[in-house]
Amino acid sequence: MKSTGNFSFKIRKASGELQDFSKLKFINSLKKSGLDQERIDLILKKLGPRLKEGLSTKRLYKLAHTLIKKNSYTAASRYAFPRTLSALGPDGFNFEKFVAGLMQRLGYSVKIGVVLKGRCVSHEVDVIASKQGKTIYMECKFHNSLNFKEDVKTALYVNARKMDLKENTENNFDEYWLVTNSKFTLDALTYSSCSGLKTVSPYDPEGQSLYDLMVKAKAHPIGIINSLRPKDQSYLIGRGIFFVKDLLSAPNAVDALHLSKSKGDEILREARALCSPF
Amino acid sequence: MKSTGNFSFKIRKASGELQDFSKLKFINSLKKSGLDQERIDLILKKLGPRLKEGLSTKRLYKLAHTLIKKNSYTAASRYAFPRTLSALGPDGFNFEKFVAGLMQRLGYSVKIGVVLKGRCVSHEVDVIASKQGKTIYMECKFHNSLNFKEDVKTALYVNARKMDLKENTENNFDEYWLVTNSKFTLDALTYSSCSGLKTVSPYDPEGQSLYDLMVKAKAHPIGIINSLRPKDQSYLIGRGIFFVKDLLSAPNAVDALHLSKSKGDEILREARALCSPF
Repeated sequence: MKSTGNFSFKIRKASGELQDFSKLKFINSLKKSGLDQERIDLILKKLGPRLKEGLSTKRLYKLAHTLIKKNSYTAASRYAFPRTLSALGPDGFNFEKFVAGLMQRLGYSVKIGVVLKGRCVSHEVDVIASKQGKTIYMECKFHNSLNFKEDVKTALYVNARKMDLKENTENNFDEYWLVTNSKFTLDALTYSSCSGLKTVSPYDPEGQSLYDLMVKAKAHPIGIINSLRPKDQSYLIGRGIFFVKDLLSAPNAVDALHLSKSKGDEILREARALCSPF
Repeated sequence: MKSTGNFSFKIRKASGELQDFSKLKFINSLKKSGLDQERIDLILKKLGPRLKEGLSTKRLYKLAHTLIKKNSYTAASRYAFPRTLSALGPDGFNFEKFVAGLMQRLGYSVKIGVVLKGRCVSHEVDVIASKQGKTIYMECKFHNSLNFKEDVKTALYVNARKMDLKENTENNFDEYWLVTNSKFTLDALTYSSCSGLKTVSPYDPEGQSLYDLMVKAKAHPIGIINSLRPKDQSYLIGRGIFFVKDLLSAPNAVDALHLSKSKGDEILREARALCSPF
C-alpha cells in the first residue's frame, strides 16, 4: 500500500469495488457537517498521510469522524447522522417508525401504514402526522446504500399518488412529504419542488432536514451511541427503542443485551452524555 | 419422477425454483390462446401422463405448444406469442424498436427516444407514433420474466409523466400508452383505466393487444420461427430484423448465421409458411 497524500488513490466501497477517491465529494460531506473551510483544511491536512490506496469508505468515515469530534461535537453528530440511520435497516419498516417517532416528539399525533382510497385506487400512506389542524402525509423510502439516489420516477409516482388521494375529497392533507435516508437526484428535486411535493433527506431542505427535525425534537437515533455494537442497535430498534431518550427511559433494555456490567454502564453513560446538550 | 396425472405436482421454474403447478393458471394460458373448453379438455387429457414432479415450465410450454399446433395454427401462434417476444431481450431497447416497427407497419410515422420538456422536467418518450393527425406517446417496459407484473407504481409514475408533458402546451398527443411484454397487476389496470392511461400487453386489451396489433400489421416477430435457434434470433434482432417479413425481404441475412444450406433453407421455408396466412 502506497501512501499518497495527494488525494489521488482508489477507495474501497462497502461492496468491495475500488473507485477513484473524490476529494470534492469528501469535502462536500465535511461541509454538510457544518464545518468551515479552515477546519476542513485542517482535517484534510491531518488525514493526508492516512489516505492510501485501498482505504475503505468505512475506515475513512471513522478517521474523519474522530478528527471532526475533536473540533465540534455538533459537527461530528451531523457528520455521523446518515450512518446512524443505517442501523434502522435492512428493510424500511423501522425507518417509517423512526420518522413517525420524530414527528410525535415534535408534537404531532401520528398514524402508520394507513390505507386510504384515492379517486382511482387505494394507497398505503406510510405516516400521517397531524398537529393544530395541519396534516402531513408522508412516504418514507429507506435504502441500505447511503449513496443511493431517489430518482425522478420515485418523485413522479409519489406525486401521482398524492394527486389521486387529493382527488378524493374524503382525504384532507396540507402537505405531502417524500422522506428518504439517502439522497435525491437533481431531476427528482426539480420535479418535486415544481409539483408541490416536499422532499426531506438527512441534510435537506435546510431548517427542515431529518437532522434539523431531530435536533428540534431533541431525539438522537440510538445509532449514534458509539459503544453500542451494530447487532445490539438492531436488537434495541427491533424492540421499539429508536431514540437515545427511549433508552434512558428504559435503561433495563440494556440488560437484555447480555453484556458485562461495565459495558452496559458505558452505553448508558454515553447515552446520558449525548442527551446532555439537549 | 412420479407421474401424477391429477395435476398435483411441483413444476420447475426457469430460476430452478420448484412451485406447485396451478391447473387454473395453465388453463387460463390455454384460454388466452383462443381455444374453446372442449379443445382445452382434450389437451389436458393428452398432457396428463406427461405431467410429472419437477417438469420445467419450458418443457410444459413446448408440450402444450405441440398439442395446440395440431388443433389450430392461430391458437399456437397466440400461445407462443409472449415467448416469441422474449427473444427481444435481455434489455428493453429492442422491445421499443419492435413496438415502433409494429406501429410503422400499421401506417404510423414513428420516432424513438425523443426527449421532451414537461412543465417541471424533461422526459424521454420511448416511442411517438403519428397518423392522420392522431399522435400516441408510448412508454415501453420489457421484462425477461414473463410472469413479472407491472404494478401500480409504474402506472402512477407513467401517468405523472403524461401529466407533466401535457401541462407543457408545446407537447401535443392524443393518447398515452404503457406497453409491456409481460402483465399488469389489477391495481395498475384499475388506476390506468381511471386516469386515462392506456395499458397494452401481449393479450390485452382485446382488439388492441400487442398480438392483435401484430395480426393487423401482418408482422410476426422472428421469435416465432421454430427452426431459428435463440442465439440466431438475437443475432438477427441485433441487426434490425424484428419481423418474419424483414427476413423475407433480406434472406441473405441468414447466410451470416453460418448454418448449413439445408438449415438455412428450412428457416426461410418456415418464414414463408408463417407469412402465408397473412
